[in-house]
Amino acid sequence: MSVAVKNEFGPDSTAIGQYMAQLGRDARVAAEVLAYADPEIKNAALLNIAEALDEQRESIKIANQKDMLKAENDGLDAALLDRLLLSDARIEAMIEGLRQVVSLADPVGEISEMEYRPSGIQVGKMRVPLGVIGIIYESRPNVTIDAAALCLKSGNASILRGGKEAINSNQAIYQCIVQGLQKTGLPKTCVQVINTVDRSAVGLMLNMQDSIDVIIPRGGKSLIERVATEASIPVIKHLDGLCHVYIDDDADLSKAFDISLNAKTRRYGVCNAMETLLVANSIAQHMMPDLIEALVDKGVELRGCSRTRQFNPAVIGSAVDEDWETEYLAPILSIKIVDGMEQAIEHINHHGSHHTDAIVTENYTRARQFLRRVDSSSVMVNASTAFADGFEYGLGAEIGISTDKLHARGPVGLKGLTSQKYIVFGDGHIRH
Amino acid sequence: MSVAVKNEFGPDSTAIGQYMAQLGRDARVAAEVLAYADPEIKNAALLNIAEALDEQRESIKIANQKDMLKAENDGLDAALLDRLLLSDARIEAMIEGLRQVVSLADPVGEISEMEYRPSGIQVGKMRVPLGVIGIIYESRPNVTIDAAALCLKSGNASILRGGKEAINSNQAIYQCIVQGLQKTGLPKTCVQVINTVDRSAVGLMLNMQDSIDVIIPRGGKSLIERVATEASIPVIKHLDGLCHVYIDDDADLSKAFDISLNAKTRRYGVCNAMETLLVANSIAQHMMPDLIEALVDKGVELRGCSRTRQFNPAVIGSAVDEDWETEYLAPILSIKIVDGMEQAIEHINHHGSHHTDAIVTENYTRARQFLRRVDSSSVMVNASTAFADGFEYGLGAEIGISTDKLHARGPVGLKGLTSQKYIVFGDGHIRH
Repeated sequence: MSVAVKNEFGPDSTAIGQYMAQLGRDARVAAEVLAYADPEIKNAALLNIAEALDEQRESIKIANQKDMLKAENDGLDAALLDRLLLSDARIEAMIEGLRQVVSLADPVGEISEMEYRPSGIQVGKMRVPLGVIGIIYESRPNVTIDAAALCLKSGNASILRGGKEAINSNQAIYQCIVQGLQKTGLPKTCVQVINTVDRSAVGLMLNMQDSIDVIIPRGGKSLIERVATEASIPVIKHLDGLCHVYIDDDADLSKAFDISLNAKTRRYGVCNAMETLLVANSIAQHMMPDLIEALVDKGVELRGCSRTRQFNPAVIGSAVDEDWETEYLAPILSIKIVDGMEQAIEHINHHGSHHTDAIVTENYTRARQFLRRVDSSSVMVNASTAFADGFEYGLGAEIGISTDKLHARGPVGLKGLTSQKYIVFGDGHIRH
Repeated sequence: MSVAVKNEFGPDSTAIGQYMAQLGRDARVAAEVLAYADPEIKNAALLNIAEALDEQRESIKIANQKDMLKAENDGLDAALLDRLLLSDARIEAMIEGLRQVVSLADPVGEISEMEYRPSGIQVGKMRVPLGVIGIIYESRPNVTIDAAALCLKSGNASILRGGKEAINSNQAIYQCIVQGLQKTGLPKTCVQVINTVDRSAVGLMLNMQDSIDVIIPRGGKSLIERVATEASIPVIKHLDGLCHVYIDDDADLSKAFDISLNAKTRRYGVCNAMETLLVANSIAQHMMPDLIEALVDKGVELRGCSRTRQFNPAVIGSAVDEDWETEYLAPILSIKIVDGMEQAIEHINHHGSHHTDAIVTENYTRARQFLRRVDSSSVMVNASTAFADGFEYGLGAEIGISTDKLHARGPVGLKGLTSQKYIVFGDGHIRH
């Protein structure tokens, strides 16, 4: 398979502008077809893409090898190389991911809330695709399949822009997508993967109001901030996950212990990991010794407030102001002893990132208050923050976790990629 | 009552910047209080505002008289003067509007869809306010109360900017709002009405990302387009209402007649009025003579395609391309005879404004197809487009009709001014 990488566009060239404009027009045309494609057509396309991936493993790995070699020569770090690599297991996971998306209910066309009004008309809502979705991500080629599948199933055309280090891998994967779409009889422009490493493509993409309805950046904070700043198109963004667990005065000690340990140590590099533990002063003496020991045993570095440090100044470092604002994504935990829930909520709402926060308590009124007053996309009672995830919430798959309030908040699944229009059934009704 | 109008800010002054920044900070603080205010507190505030309006009718009318005089001297047109006028009936309507908002269910804190997941956690959603809403509108002082009431009830702080011609009226109304809020013990900055006629206030407002969560422009197309172009904050916008009725081959003639007449002639200057009538060729000869006569009797100017004109070239003018793209907001109707539904849908999706479109048909399959394939915020079968309205849909009140797809589409009521966060109930659950 030959993969032509278009990187001939000079920085002052209008060619890249024309290329992007054409992608936009093609996406708009494809979106009209896709919006009304039957569920079985979309599922057939997903399965045909899976089949193409299965058949073309070798050419995908060859393309990926090319990217890996260049990345190594360019001295990219180990974490990036790991994300770039398409192993057999990762290709298998992409194929499996497509099959999972097939198994999800099709959200498009869903009719709900059809209620009769006093005038006699019946009013409700029908779920519809958003149109064209632009996705900008880093050098993780498996995201290409993920994003394409979720957009396709939700009836949206997509324009995908992956990190430049993955261009050969992404184009090899895109060949499989094209093959799957064409075999199904859908326009190949239902999904488009931008075929240039020219960075100006991103800037252009962020301002294609006429042809892209929403931009979803997936990746690190700097990427997302750039997208949010430069885009004139609506953005569904996922910023930091600075998650808290608050252990209340009336916490069950055993639940508090399990949840704290799980929220911090299940995985360190994920957005739903706990970064700051808040403990009510009255329960701290009962909680802290065992919990500190368990966390240290797991190799977690602790940074505490002065009251926390008293429990074991030898192993608990001093937390500075910056610690309360830091998403470590590492085996580090900041701990603060607070006077009670009021102070905890104040801390979470002002230092947190409005992602996911949990209270551990047996107290009914405080549980209710915490749920109401913590301004985060997920708020939990007696459960680990690690549950904040599209699969765990039953969305089936997620394109990301929105820390925005408009349109979608929290894990964004297929429904988050749709809108609802009003539909009205009458029987010749006129308005008086 | 003295109403001080701050208009001392020069165009190069930083004073206006500081003034707006302070409004933003105050709104953010008020939003935190309002987000968790009990329903009875918010309702008491609305009733106290109504009471203040009732008591201060005379000072409101004096302030309005000042605006009216200036507007007359400035030679503003009759339509604008009419919208600016606060008659006794309009003040009464504002008071009644507040009472209606009191009677609506409070959307905030509503918990829904709490489902158990295989892991044992229970996951669902809680409705929450958006935060701070900025509303920019024209010189219709009654919108000040409307907008303030809907934002307050939905738990959002608001920053309101009305047209400069209404500044004295708006400030007089704002005094009543302040009085009502303070009597209830809520911060007066829960609602803020910008007290300057300096146009740069709008530009500043559109870029206060840190203190405004969403901007809603209410008014004519040029205002909305300016807001959409200049805002770096998300905008919920309401553009044109170029609505269609399509009379299908299988239409019931009597329903088609009633609906067409109602959709066009109930009111002319509203966004849900029909502007273009599409008629299937096979039914045209049965429909057109009576309908043309009825429309002409009502004083509607008709502009038709060549096939339409054949029915009565004496009264039907020639429609030009521009007619299919025009929201007349007047007693003018463009009429096109189409070959069938395919052509009608094509016309609606490409010439319409995605606001409200209706089919009249007895055919089950075509009704279903039309509902699916017409890409508008409201799609109707056998009902007049005049029903596209928050009250008719049961939303109780509306802040506008969104022609956007993201976040809110169609009439936007209290729920449209809220978001949902995920909530999770556990019993010590950890993720494996």
